[in-house]
Amino acid sequence: MGNGTNRQVLLASLPEGQLQPDHFRLEEAAMPTIAAGEILVQVILISLDAANRAWMQGATYREAVKAGDVMHAYVLGQVVESRADDIAEGEIVMGEGGWSDYVVMSAKRAVKAPAHRPLSNLLSVAGIAGKTAYHGLLRIGEPKTGETVVVSAAAGSVGIFVGQIAKLKGCRVVGIAGGAEKGDWLVSELGFDAAVDYKAGNLFRDLRAACPDGIDVYFDNVGGAIAEAALFQMNLHGRIVCCGAVSQYDTTDQASPRGVPGLLVVKRLKMQGFIVMDFAAEDAKAEADLLGWAESGQLKVIEDVVDGLENAPAGLIGLLAGENRGKRMVRVSPDP
Amino acid sequence: MGNGTNRQVLLASLPEGQLQPDHFRLEEAAMPTIAAGEILVQVILISLDAANRAWMQGATYREAVKAGDVMHAYVLGQVVESRADDIAEGEIVMGEGGWSDYVVMSAKRAVKAPAHRPLSNLLSVAGIAGKTAYHGLLRIGEPKTGETVVVSAAAGSVGIFVGQIAKLKGCRVVGIAGGAEKGDWLVSELGFDAAVDYKAGNLFRDLRAACPDGIDVYFDNVGGAIAEAALFQMNLHGRIVCCGAVSQYDTTDQASPRGVPGLLVVKRLKMQGFIVMDFAAEDAKAEADLLGWAESGQLKVIEDVVDGLENAPAGLIGLLAGENRGKRMVRVSPDP
Repeated sequence: MGNGTNRQVLLASLPEGQLQPDHFRLEEAAMPTIAAGEILVQVILISLDAANRAWMQGATYREAVKAGDVMHAYVLGQVVESRADDIAEGEIVMGEGGWSDYVVMSAKRAVKAPAHRPLSNLLSVAGIAGKTAYHGLLRIGEPKTGETVVVSAAAGSVGIFVGQIAKLKGCRVVGIAGGAEKGDWLVSELGFDAAVDYKAGNLFRDLRAACPDGIDVYFDNVGGAIAEAALFQMNLHGRIVCCGAVSQYDTTDQASPRGVPGLLVVKRLKMQGFIVMDFAAEDAKAEADLLGWAESGQLKVIEDVVDGLENAPAGLIGLLAGENRGKRMVRVSPDP
Repeated sequence: MGNGTNRQVLLASLPEGQLQPDHFRLEEAAMPTIAAGEILVQVILISLDAANRAWMQGATYREAVKAGDVMHAYVLGQVVESRADDIAEGEIVMGEGGWSDYVVMSAKRAVKAPAHRPLSNLLSVAGIAGKTAYHGLLRIGEPKTGETVVVSAAAGSVGIFVGQIAKLKGCRVVGIAGGAEKGDWLVSELGFDAAVDYKAGNLFRDLRAACPDGIDVYFDNVGGAIAEAALFQMNLHGRIVCCGAVSQYDTTDQASPRGVPGLLVVKRLKMQGFIVMDFAAEDAKAEADLLGWAESGQLKVIEDVVDGLENAPAGLIGLLAGENRGKRMVRVSPDP
């Protein structure tokens, strides 16, 4: 390698409010060269995540994306050149990379992919999305048989697994999503007990109708007004799993749900944030459970694959607007 | 009994905003008579609590106080007449009562007081205040040696114990209270490491100066802007103990701290509400620990006793304004 060119999508400027296509720029760069301890990876799939938008707002649990950077991303690809002893050409790896055809990774920080096909599953059910749903719901939400579990962004990468895992645990499951069509799909395709269309204008009332016994576990992917509607309908000793606040990523506004901390006291609620890495010690069990359920057909794996690196910006913008169903990713090159 | 009169303080009207003396009315009523299974109790001490104000806003974890009711309260008193087999005249009991010289209790719901003097301790260190501090800090806050613990309403009934117990657990302890004098007292009398005066106008900056290593446990007694200042300075994996929201009891405003749930995710915080009854199963150990520490001098017991039933309204109003130091109660009759 070392010759040829490498397409890259840069974050041209930092968004102030809503992310737009002209915040990005596609460039051709020289093929990167690698130093000792590094590997050159041909990108196969790029993970698109609501958190990508948060990275533009400053340092979070990781460094910020700055204007002029190749857009950061979690990627999966094949090693095409290695200067590390323990990773060979041809191996499939995952790790922090960017929106480009080829990325350089530190061999130490690259994770070898398990032998599983299709590779896209490693970014969905057996990836961060699946594990986020698994750890967040089971470890923080602690759902019990017969309880009511509500999940927002229910048709999203994490939401589809939260709802289905809650069903496996014997819960009544209600998904909040935008549009009647998405809601119908959650019920008919994924087995949710009910769905609430937050765009219909009667969120509080519709949520109450869908949860006649109140809410025991609310898995929050959005924050804001939706989180507030759930908060006010929580049962005593309910658990709110704070998984990410999509509604707060794509804006500079930080409006919190009313009733904090008053309702937490009166109803004795637990509200807890997490990111998937917090439960890394239990990832092996999570992966085994998730792939086992998927193989037995108990868990439907929905993937939303955008084709072509050049379509990554539109893919992320659409994700933030909620147009995806299931885990969204960008296909940059075919599975080898 | 059954003759004589019984002074009572009624909640004459429900407050809309701030509680005022004219929301109350002192009356003389006939001495109550009791039915089978009931006891007549001469009130010795009335507990004054910020939660009393919340009871005026509707049903919470207990029934609401309505206009025209004798003001509800947790009281301690001596049985002067019994129509229950298992409680004799002369015994000391505690339970739900009201602001009056004599109250009727269901014998089943009355709790016999442990043999301890002075009786006031049963409403402070060995009462709800002490147990609230103990359970909330230890069970929800989970402080570890060397961590920084911040408590608001630090000079209040619960705050004085939270800070002192956190010191016993080897933490750096910072109290938030109103006024420099209270802060000096927390440091010099109760052994807090530092105090922040929220009335000084530089809450955020002063809190940061007092917590150079950030905040690991925030024990919230107030909500609102103070809770927000703490939230923004929490360390990764911090715990916020939501114990009651004084700032929200005496108003109809429900402004929440900004950054919920965004900061909970980014910092992986737990925010959990509780009331003392949630940990009733562990009360015996709590009481033994608290009284043990008090007797050995490791825990200073500060009590703020208002003399006379007729002064209960001013006592509660003053409590909500933060004028008390330690547990406030009303002395209605002397310890027998």
